[in-house]
Amino acid sequence: MPIQALIFDVFGTLLDWHGGVAREAERLLGTLRPDLDGGTFARAWRDRYQPGMEPIRAGARAYADLDVLHAESLEAVLASYRIDGVSPEAKQELVGAWHRLDAWPDVAEGLARLRPRFLLAPCSNAHVRLAIAHARRNGLPWDAVLGAEFARDYKPKPAVYLRTVEALRLEPGEVMMVAAHSFDLVAAAGCGLATAHIARPDESGPGTGEAAPACPVDVAARDLRDLADRLGC
Amino acid sequence: MPIQALIFDVFGTLLDWHGGVAREAERLLGTLRPDLDGGTFARAWRDRYQPGMEPIRAGARAYADLDVLHAESLEAVLASYRIDGVSPEAKQELVGAWHRLDAWPDVAEGLARLRPRFLLAPCSNAHVRLAIAHARRNGLPWDAVLGAEFARDYKPKPAVYLRTVEALRLEPGEVMMVAAHSFDLVAAAGCGLATAHIARPDESGPGTGEAAPACPVDVAARDLRDLADRLGC
Repeated sequence: MPIQALIFDVFGTLLDWHGGVAREAERLLGTLRPDLDGGTFARAWRDRYQPGMEPIRAGARAYADLDVLHAESLEAVLASYRIDGVSPEAKQELVGAWHRLDAWPDVAEGLARLRPRFLLAPCSNAHVRLAIAHARRNGLPWDAVLGAEFARDYKPKPAVYLRTVEALRLEPGEVMMVAAHSFDLVAAAGCGLATAHIARPDESGPGTGEAAPACPVDVAARDLRDLADRLGC
Repeated sequence: MPIQALIFDVFGTLLDWHGGVAREAERLLGTLRPDLDGGTFARAWRDRYQPGMEPIRAGARAYADLDVLHAESLEAVLASYRIDGVSPEAKQELVGAWHRLDAWPDVAEGLARLRPRFLLAPCSNAHVRLAIAHARRNGLPWDAVLGAEFARDYKPKPAVYLRTVEALRLEPGEVMMVAAHSFDLVAAAGCGLATAHIARPDESGPGTGEAAPACPVDVAARDLRDLADRLGC
């Protein structure tokens, strides 16, 4: 079945969350903790990301967006660092750091080449307003913002992929999920979607990310330019 | 409260549904009915639009998208014209006419001028895939596709406006509904949104549309260029 749409994971796959959050943590917490290593702080915060969504995936908590979950996990990570005295305004700005992330250098060109041939949408755990911030900052040429908020659930729950496919009025086999994380692709493939893996070996520091997929995929690409090459764009 | 986002009605306000459907009806039904007046046919079809949504608004029918409702009302309008023998393929192409509508001449410039200052999204009864078709064909620079499918209900039900505002993470008073139809603006104002009326006096033929709002509005504009002027863009 020919692919008609590409849907994208965003954090790590398209955007450098690690570098962006590290930069903002050092900026906003540097007076309270001059020796803070922003990268380590960013990873500690991100480590609380999957557990934070779990009660929502399990149906034990109503949908709450990533700003809410990031604000909650920020309290926990500040406590674990024993950093006191962060003002409410600084906390809010730190949560806003996730809105001010930069795309990897291959993304703009890759998406621009893919867009004439495919519908493009994020299928991310970011909510609509967060996805808009990412798109405006980085010029991401989305046809629509789909994903978690549209489904009111979180990946890798099947509903998120399936509602995205439904909104595009396509069959699952006509849609390719693009991600740098094998767990995301395994879940998408389980819903019948095609899959493309993007290597981001340095996602959160050298050697921390997936250099290759840990699961069968339809396409394994070095980056989005390479994905465009492999899809003939 | 300063306006941060503009959300738009689409059929009639941004797109010439009457001219587009008239053109396609004459093209696709002309061999069966050489004397068909496409404009009259388009109006007869559109007249069945509001009643078709009513069972969904009333909760008596689950959400069904405009392709489904247009296909149903097409049968009724063909029957009323006593046009027989339309192939399933031609019917599908006729329903697709609503995907191939052209924007009024002021729309591209108006939206381009408004975009640097405001978030822009459709708040239309069109479903996501239909809105994507409109945007791709006419270069509508949406930040996100919101409206009926996101809310799984139809305007003028408050849920459609309120879910759109919620997805933008704004207060109702920070969002302006832009429409050529007073009933739409009355409903939006009832939800606390600001309102802008666009004059489309010839929406479905000379003198058929609203030359001025029939309700109090925050802004009454001649077209989207005039709206951009009035909002200082």
